[in-house]
Amino acid sequence: MRIIKDSTPAGDGFRMPGEFERHQGCIMIFPERSDSWQYGGYAARKAFVQVAESIARSEKVTVCASASQYDNARALLPDSVRVVEMSSNDAWARDYGPTFVKNDQGELRGIDWGFNAWGGLYDGLYFPWDKDDQMARKLCDLLDKDVYDKRDFILEGGAVHVDGEGTCMVTESCLLSKGRNPDMTRQETEEVLKKYLNVSKILWLPCGIYNDETNGHVDNICAFVKPGEVVLAWTDDKSDAQYGMSMACAEYLEKTADAKGRKIRVHKLPLPRPVTVTAQECQGLDACREKPARTPGERLAASYVNFYIANESIVMPGFGDPADEGAREILQGLFPDREVIQIYSRDILIGGGNIHCITQQIPE
Amino acid sequence: MRIIKDSTPAGDGFRMPGEFERHQGCIMIFPERSDSWQYGGYAARKAFVQVAESIARSEKVTVCASASQYDNARALLPDSVRVVEMSSNDAWARDYGPTFVKNDQGELRGIDWGFNAWGGLYDGLYFPWDKDDQMARKLCDLLDKDVYDKRDFILEGGAVHVDGEGTCMVTESCLLSKGRNPDMTRQETEEVLKKYLNVSKILWLPCGIYNDETNGHVDNICAFVKPGEVVLAWTDDKSDAQYGMSMACAEYLEKTADAKGRKIRVHKLPLPRPVTVTAQECQGLDACREKPARTPGERLAASYVNFYIANESIVMPGFGDPADEGAREILQGLFPDREVIQIYSRDILIGGGNIHCITQQIPE
Repeated sequence: MRIIKDSTPAGDGFRMPGEFERHQGCIMIFPERSDSWQYGGYAARKAFVQVAESIARSEKVTVCASASQYDNARALLPDSVRVVEMSSNDAWARDYGPTFVKNDQGELRGIDWGFNAWGGLYDGLYFPWDKDDQMARKLCDLLDKDVYDKRDFILEGGAVHVDGEGTCMVTESCLLSKGRNPDMTRQETEEVLKKYLNVSKILWLPCGIYNDETNGHVDNICAFVKPGEVVLAWTDDKSDAQYGMSMACAEYLEKTADAKGRKIRVHKLPLPRPVTVTAQECQGLDACREKPARTPGERLAASYVNFYIANESIVMPGFGDPADEGAREILQGLFPDREVIQIYSRDILIGGGNIHCITQQIPE
Repeated sequence: MRIIKDSTPAGDGFRMPGEFERHQGCIMIFPERSDSWQYGGYAARKAFVQVAESIARSEKVTVCASASQYDNARALLPDSVRVVEMSSNDAWARDYGPTFVKNDQGELRGIDWGFNAWGGLYDGLYFPWDKDDQMARKLCDLLDKDVYDKRDFILEGGAVHVDGEGTCMVTESCLLSKGRNPDMTRQETEEVLKKYLNVSKILWLPCGIYNDETNGHVDNICAFVKPGEVVLAWTDDKSDAQYGMSMACAEYLEKTADAKGRKIRVHKLPLPRPVTVTAQECQGLDACREKPARTPGERLAASYVNFYIANESIVMPGFGDPADEGAREILQGLFPDREVIQIYSRDILIGGGNIHCITQQIPE
């Protein structure tokens, strides 16, 4: 593995493909952290296994497990899934797995962004995050791909979505937050994204999902289903704090064009009713930096937008909510060639994210 | 990765190729253990890096490093070498890496033998050995190869050599030692080797190198250079304890034919003068199970036979001994199409083995 410091993907003719383009595989991390996953992570691991199984039907899944969880991961996951030993601080392959870029000859490279647990010492979620921050390089090494070193720029994979045709979508609340790159202007941030993802237009949604502890990652509120079309998490309940947030995003998208000058078509994806964590669930979480990891009644950032686009399926969250079926039908309509697989994901959500957050595609 | 329990390589049409057949790569493990490698392993790691670099000139080398050594391994090894995180108890890829078998269609599978640190609680060298014992499976998983589960049979890779044409060579002192499979007869042991390596004839050398703490692995005393031809570690010094041992092996080979009925041609490879460990070296080793790991003056099992056959080179030990050059010339004569690279390997030898012990080929 060569670590590339003196050139950029755009300069070298590499671009980040859209998630809906063909994959050779998917990376996941086996959950274990006792202040993220209640009751020793048993329920979370079951849900992760379901996600891995579903994706593995149409692409090769590699699951990273710690030395102590390797045997257990191997026992719970199907033979078709590859398990490799790799240590981490938690299980968010989207956020600290490599961002892959590809050139016209089909060569693949990774980008290693800096990672600081969603805000570092300012408003990050845990400390330390050293093992997470190593993963992008380690995964590129494992896959025998060269990697761009951009560790001087803090970014998580869930903070960006691209259409593969020159457009990148982010949120202001995340990318301009004080815990990321406080010394950089919006303009400078745009320049990095343009050079590394090889895009020419950044769509700046104002915010993400209410109470999303990632400072509002775009991948929980809005996702491309194809170039020029997005799904946006939505509620019609004006009394919900989310209402104004989703409305602000819709209004922004309404008046903005993508890199190709196309007006963006917005499909509203209704949210489930507010999902809150129970006292019983909180009891099963170890303390995080001497404080309770969650408090009973705390609202979780539940959203159907947090789905993964696999080669032949959409793997999407379900919450046991009356809206589950409608959300599934909307996505099935938008992805007619893929089977929509809905997985009950409350046990992933309690950890702080959902299916998109725990997966990272490797383009073909 | 599928774990195969209900069939054997021979039954499935798989055989272990000779080391001189073409490889797709080589596995190594980064040394770290403080009671094996003096003074924190600095000198050993330098020697391992030289070995990896040499092999990497003609095949892909994968080095397994612990989480804490990953960054250091990445920094010391060239870009062309792949570094993966994998935990182990020590650094002997030959002995607990998978033994690979291959079928006529070119499909590759691994064999996962039981490993008990060269003798378990009877006369093993350290405790515990759980991480070593996991490595064969983990490496097969990493390489996406199915693996035969033969963990009920204790064997190290360095305890067997094959010619790829039906012959396997072992030592009685190792395979019949009380710390391996004490409830099995010689006949039963032969049956396992025949079924798993797909061989029809076992050559039983009586012993290995004097004071070799592996109970005399064959790979330190005798190695195939091609079917029908071996090199045998040799001394003409009748006062040396090794004299009778090498003579006994020569006499055995003299009167024995291989699987194809060929008389075996023996090339004598003179040993260096006895190599003993110094007080200064012993001081740099942590205690092992409350006892000194080595004692000053202890004779080490130095032998030029412990070389690795890479695709385009022979990577062989050197000891700074007058015999180094002669040994190099003999091997160069026997492998005219490969460049012989001699590496000063005292710092590997102090750990208890040599270049063949720290490498494991992956057939093409």
